[in-house]
Amino acid sequence: MASTLLVPELRELLATGNADALREFCLRGRPAVVADLLSGLEPEEVWRVLQVVELPDRAEIFSQLELELQAQMVPDIEREEMARLLEEMPHDLRVDLVQALEEEVREDILPLVARAERADIRRLASYPEDTAGALMTTDYAALPPQVTVQEALERLRLQAPDRETIYYVYVIDENRRLTGFVSLKDLILARPSRLVRDVMYTDVVSVRADQDREDVADVIGHYDLLAVPVVNAEGVLVGIITVDDIVEVLEEEATEDIYHYGAAGEPVDYLSASPLSIARQRLPWLMILVLAAFLSGFVLQQFSPVWTALAPLMIFVPLLMGAGGSAGTQSTTVIIRGLATGEITLADRFRVLRKEVTVGLMVGAAMGILAAGRAWFIKTDSHFGNLHLCASVGLAMVCAVVLAKTIGGLLPLALKRLGFDPALMSAPLITTILDSLTLTIYFTLAAVIMLA
Amino acid sequence: MASTLLVPELRELLATGNADALREFCLRGRPAVVADLLSGLEPEEVWRVLQVVELPDRAEIFSQLELELQAQMVPDIEREEMARLLEEMPHDLRVDLVQALEEEVREDILPLVARAERADIRRLASYPEDTAGALMTTDYAALPPQVTVQEALERLRLQAPDRETIYYVYVIDENRRLTGFVSLKDLILARPSRLVRDVMYTDVVSVRADQDREDVADVIGHYDLLAVPVVNAEGVLVGIITVDDIVEVLEEEATEDIYHYGAAGEPVDYLSASPLSIARQRLPWLMILVLAAFLSGFVLQQFSPVWTALAPLMIFVPLLMGAGGSAGTQSTTVIIRGLATGEITLADRFRVLRKEVTVGLMVGAAMGILAAGRAWFIKTDSHFGNLHLCASVGLAMVCAVVLAKTIGGLLPLALKRLGFDPALMSAPLITTILDSLTLTIYFTLAAVIMLA
Repeated sequence: MASTLLVPELRELLATGNADALREFCLRGRPAVVADLLSGLEPEEVWRVLQVVELPDRAEIFSQLELELQAQMVPDIEREEMARLLEEMPHDLRVDLVQALEEEVREDILPLVARAERADIRRLASYPEDTAGALMTTDYAALPPQVTVQEALERLRLQAPDRETIYYVYVIDENRRLTGFVSLKDLILARPSRLVRDVMYTDVVSVRADQDREDVADVIGHYDLLAVPVVNAEGVLVGIITVDDIVEVLEEEATEDIYHYGAAGEPVDYLSASPLSIARQRLPWLMILVLAAFLSGFVLQQFSPVWTALAPLMIFVPLLMGAGGSAGTQSTTVIIRGLATGEITLADRFRVLRKEVTVGLMVGAAMGILAAGRAWFIKTDSHFGNLHLCASVGLAMVCAVVLAKTIGGLLPLALKRLGFDPALMSAPLITTILDSLTLTIYFTLAAVIMLA
Repeated sequence: MASTLLVPELRELLATGNADALREFCLRGRPAVVADLLSGLEPEEVWRVLQVVELPDRAEIFSQLELELQAQMVPDIEREEMARLLEEMPHDLRVDLVQALEEEVREDILPLVARAERADIRRLASYPEDTAGALMTTDYAALPPQVTVQEALERLRLQAPDRETIYYVYVIDENRRLTGFVSLKDLILARPSRLVRDVMYTDVVSVRADQDREDVADVIGHYDLLAVPVVNAEGVLVGIITVDDIVEVLEEEATEDIYHYGAAGEPVDYLSASPLSIARQRLPWLMILVLAAFLSGFVLQQFSPVWTALAPLMIFVPLLMGAGGSAGTQSTTVIIRGLATGEITLADRFRVLRKEVTVGLMVGAAMGILAAGRAWFIKTDSHFGNLHLCASVGLAMVCAVVLAKTIGGLLPLALKRLGFDPALMSAPLITTILDSLTLTIYFTLAAVIMLA
């Protein structure tokens, strides 16, 4: 969405040193919009533009730049100035930036940052990736329960400039334990003389710092929150997570699920990753799939008397394998997604079984008739061979599709039951598993019909 | 996430008619939390609990119930009372409810709703599904530009009770054209005597009512907004879309992408849908895939002289098909997701081509060695037959994987270029397309080696 429309104008203003116009540009739009427009410039130019505004505005716009661009700008920024910028930045974003810096650059700058802020950076950096703690920010607005609404509003006005949000306010006791929640809207509507304690909600939805970020996304999505408070094991408020961070999490989690589902490993930055690192991501799964596919070869070997006796049987191997794989992939897809959104749970396993068998019989019958019809037009040595081929192909199709839908539907549930990520049952894996089963069904049916 | 923990206690309170305790329960938690706890009750019981609180609180909690439960409750609610409830509900949610009602129930209730509110419901209901208009709400906070900050805050306090949010305030001129934006935080921090016109941002990010809801999600995610204003073609403010609605949109869009990618048709409510309706969703794609797989059978037919001359070649058909399908699926997955998130664009097509060919050569070589190794242990009629088999299988693997990665990477880009949804290139479809190509490569190589 980065617009490059304004880049020539901005360069012109920089060249002529028109600070007033640049300042006007920086302050006319919301920081995120300005940051977006600035992204078209070179890192060093962006920094020159930001010099024209005062530190708080500069920090706000800088914070909204892409992390990559921020990191590219750091070497151009004087150390002391960088330390001041870090002190002003939102707490969650500055941790991300510090963690993205080279070790030596980081160790150059951090000692210049005020002690309390430095401790905050180190604390936030200590939470394991993908937890609520790693996602949260510590610049939340908090109040004690015994102040009046009027005093609360005055305190919030003072806190406002360096808080991530003042729209959600958390009420904490003298030990910083989370005891209540009140929205700015509630405070504005309440009588000024009432106590915060009496207008706050005591039933507060919160998450623990060690919870998975997917849980956080679920809570925020389920309760339509702008932010959720994060507590430690003792119930002490340690941070908040805002909904804008969750929007990013949802996108990243969807990418992860889709990658797993395509057996493509963990997500990498495709355009900038080297072919070698991409190959390293992809090869392990391919090797596993090749080894699993050896089984299909083994099945074919075992049944060689059958297909050497009636060679046209071979012509339908790709068709049956493809049909089984596709039918199974459909079911796996639906169940994996249902488990991810919570629509389907382990308790539904019998309903899934019944449904997939019924659906499998329906679509299998249609596909079996189509396949048998195709078999009718294949030339064989005898009329008997032709009937034999039609029956084998048609029946095998029905059985393979029913089995594919059943197994495709139940395997993700089984993985979940065993504590694995259901998305490990990728489309290529379910296809490979079903291949050998389909071949076994097909040639067994063909052998039985041949003997009949 | 619905908790049933409190259900017996709530039933007890209902049975004993303990209105005070029920009121306390309803007001102690945020409306969304209370709604969640109430969901464990029968629809008729929920309504009896809600009777104990006054209309504004009742409407707030009712609005937070799942749409399905709301619709189940309506028949139990007296018509006049239902009309009052609709008048109090958030404008976007009540439209959803009205649209979910049976025609006759709707026509019973709507005439009882105040005229202006009724017009609002009809207007919002008129926007096509999946557009910004269908997602927006009309209960936004707006101000004229010429009032002072102090007056603005007073007006917002009056508007607050029935606005979706007062944290984002839109500034409109006398023709309701969107001219600026100011956050409640900015207003609280500004000097009370300044004019709204002088503290507002004039560079406002907005969306048009006819834009796709995915665009809205992109805008809100990109600029980290709590809400985005919706304007018509004349720039008149017609509504806003809040971030909580976008969290839902993101989930629904991810489901849609994953279903398409698994060739499972459009998302249905799996557990409640009948097997017949699920079969109807899935069969069209399966039939297309079966027809496409006929091509692989045709390839096998054409090459029958080759595989009847050296029967063990057949044993590697499932392995090669599986490897090609898996390698292609990986690439398609990565490119489809990259296109969806905007990380990859059509302009990157040559980089994708180069990258996939290189990665294909790397992983193809490893897989080819593994497959050729396996071939070495297959018994053939002669030593020459054995070498022949190894060379055919190993070389075919390398070629098939490179081709699979190239085609798998480029086909989604081609679909996008032609104006189709890249996710139409589902995992089963790319697998089926690659099957016939893999077989052609394999048997052509085998035939060439045989003649050599």
